[in-house]
Amino acid sequence: MSSAPCVAIVGVTGAVGQEFLRVIEQRNFPFSELRLLASARSAGKPLTFKGKTYKVEELKDTSFKGVDLALFSAGGSISKQYAPIAKDAGVAVVDNSSAFRMTDGIPLIVPEVNPQDMKHLKLGKGCIIANPNCSTIIMLVPVTPLHRAATVKRMVVSTYQAASGAGYAAMMELEEQSRQVLVGQTPVCKIFKQQYAFNLFSHNSDMQPNGYNQEEMKMLKETHKIWSDNKPRITTTCVRVPVMRAHAESINLEFEKPLDENDAREILRKAPGITLIDDRASNRFPTPLDASGNDDIYVGRIRNDISRDDKKGLDLFVSGDQLRKGAALNAVQIAELML
Amino acid sequence: MSSAPCVAIVGVTGAVGQEFLRVIEQRNFPFSELRLLASARSAGKPLTFKGKTYKVEELKDTSFKGVDLALFSAGGSISKQYAPIAKDAGVAVVDNSSAFRMTDGIPLIVPEVNPQDMKHLKLGKGCIIANPNCSTIIMLVPVTPLHRAATVKRMVVSTYQAASGAGYAAMMELEEQSRQVLVGQTPVCKIFKQQYAFNLFSHNSDMQPNGYNQEEMKMLKETHKIWSDNKPRITTTCVRVPVMRAHAESINLEFEKPLDENDAREILRKAPGITLIDDRASNRFPTPLDASGNDDIYVGRIRNDISRDDKKGLDLFVSGDQLRKGAALNAVQIAELML
Repeated sequence: MSSAPCVAIVGVTGAVGQEFLRVIEQRNFPFSELRLLASARSAGKPLTFKGKTYKVEELKDTSFKGVDLALFSAGGSISKQYAPIAKDAGVAVVDNSSAFRMTDGIPLIVPEVNPQDMKHLKLGKGCIIANPNCSTIIMLVPVTPLHRAATVKRMVVSTYQAASGAGYAAMMELEEQSRQVLVGQTPVCKIFKQQYAFNLFSHNSDMQPNGYNQEEMKMLKETHKIWSDNKPRITTTCVRVPVMRAHAESINLEFEKPLDENDAREILRKAPGITLIDDRASNRFPTPLDASGNDDIYVGRIRNDISRDDKKGLDLFVSGDQLRKGAALNAVQIAELML
Repeated sequence: MSSAPCVAIVGVTGAVGQEFLRVIEQRNFPFSELRLLASARSAGKPLTFKGKTYKVEELKDTSFKGVDLALFSAGGSISKQYAPIAKDAGVAVVDNSSAFRMTDGIPLIVPEVNPQDMKHLKLGKGCIIANPNCSTIIMLVPVTPLHRAATVKRMVVSTYQAASGAGYAAMMELEEQSRQVLVGQTPVCKIFKQQYAFNLFSHNSDMQPNGYNQEEMKMLKETHKIWSDNKPRITTTCVRVPVMRAHAESINLEFEKPLDENDAREILRKAPGITLIDDRASNRFPTPLDASGNDDIYVGRIRNDISRDDKKGLDLFVSGDQLRKGAALNAVQIAELML
């Protein structure tokens, strides 16, 4: 492939789809042609991008003719149906859904962590590469460099997850419910079963028989696959909080080897994709608003775990934009690795 | 003391002060006389309670004459100044501030946990009893019965704390900022240094040199005092979330002995002050709105920690009203133990 690729975006009208366009523009991702695909409902809708107006096309079996690269974010069932069709048509698919993440032979990639797992894949040949779950990516960008330094034995993670993880309609529901509560109306629940405004709840993904929900199990299983290592023990509690588009995570790490907090801070300062906000003097640490609209994972509250005397424990608090590094940005970075 | 006590409320115009009145009314707490005390700024303000109108009086050295019981919630410096004066005047003081919590000889009480630590104290004799930090109370009501069953070795806790913990003005700031954000205005920060609406941040209490903030250190030290046991290791991460008046906590427990999740659930079902919401089938677990305005600590997500094979670990998610069990209710329950 010497010329710029023909790029298709599947699910372009969704929250992540729209973010794909922003990331492609901001990173000046090269493309010779752009196809904006969505469901029949959105077909025909005009979308202006880089000064040119495109018409959204309905996603069909024939949509991938001539396409080199497709970024999918239209939900698991659309991916299951159309990603293999695209692959068979010679398209390199980067899929943001959970459909193929745990499939053997399909790389699950965080470019800062395991780019080597996709080094055999290039544009010009059909393939599927999976984009991990947002919470997994936001956790692994900062935890992996520490894991390399001191080997993570066990992690205890609690999340503070934004509306955007449940899509654009969930963001609107948070906004609309907030208005309703502020004027004394009963908030209307459509996307979530419970009031979201001025409230929080256990993540809405399906529960497993072991008492963990799907989101929590993804963080565990995807970490093992991305690290190619099933030994680290992980327990997570995933919670939806009334924040728009950036997740936060409180992360407790247990290591094989001692790791001083100052060494950890230096490791994180040098690591790719990370901005430190760790200012104890002015009590300034990462917030979702710091991360919103930005590429990096913001990391702070870096401290040796006071519940241990051996320096083999560390606490951190991180935040990352769910739509960018948690989804669209990571997918485009995967595509960049194939250019 | 045969007749009902003369009761003073110090800081009656604050969020906890107002909740003291509600709890006293709802529990039909006996009183022969009620004195509503606050700063000079609020003096003269009329307050209607149980159909009678009271005038708020300015808190002075002479305010405690004839008072049997005083409930204080006017901040640490007011407590430091006036609680000893009240005690010397023969008043039994229940203090909601942090002023005396760690003072030797002053009991720190959660009635469901350590009522024995105040059994030598009765109305009619001057004393000070400290009410623990809200996050500590909300954690210990559910964790103590599990600790008694299997002995907590280590806890990793992340909090989701409401506005009310920072007072009435903080609740108003959250509401006002939410309105501002929803109409596209820049939110005004007065109580907190950072935007609170649709955001969250590390707890605003002062940071210690060890990288933990005061709130986190309170949860550790107060637990040791309340349990009369310094052995359990505790690390906490305290976070302020845009919720009005109930805290939530994600709690990971490591035990000396194995504890099956079903046994844990039965223990919690029978424990005082707890309501279980642990419905995996319909993904329904405790939320701050469940707890708001209610007395119990709501407990759910009870599951054996998947990061361990020995059943010596458990995860829970709890929520409790910060103004009630986290403050006013617990203080009134302490007072009831002295009746």
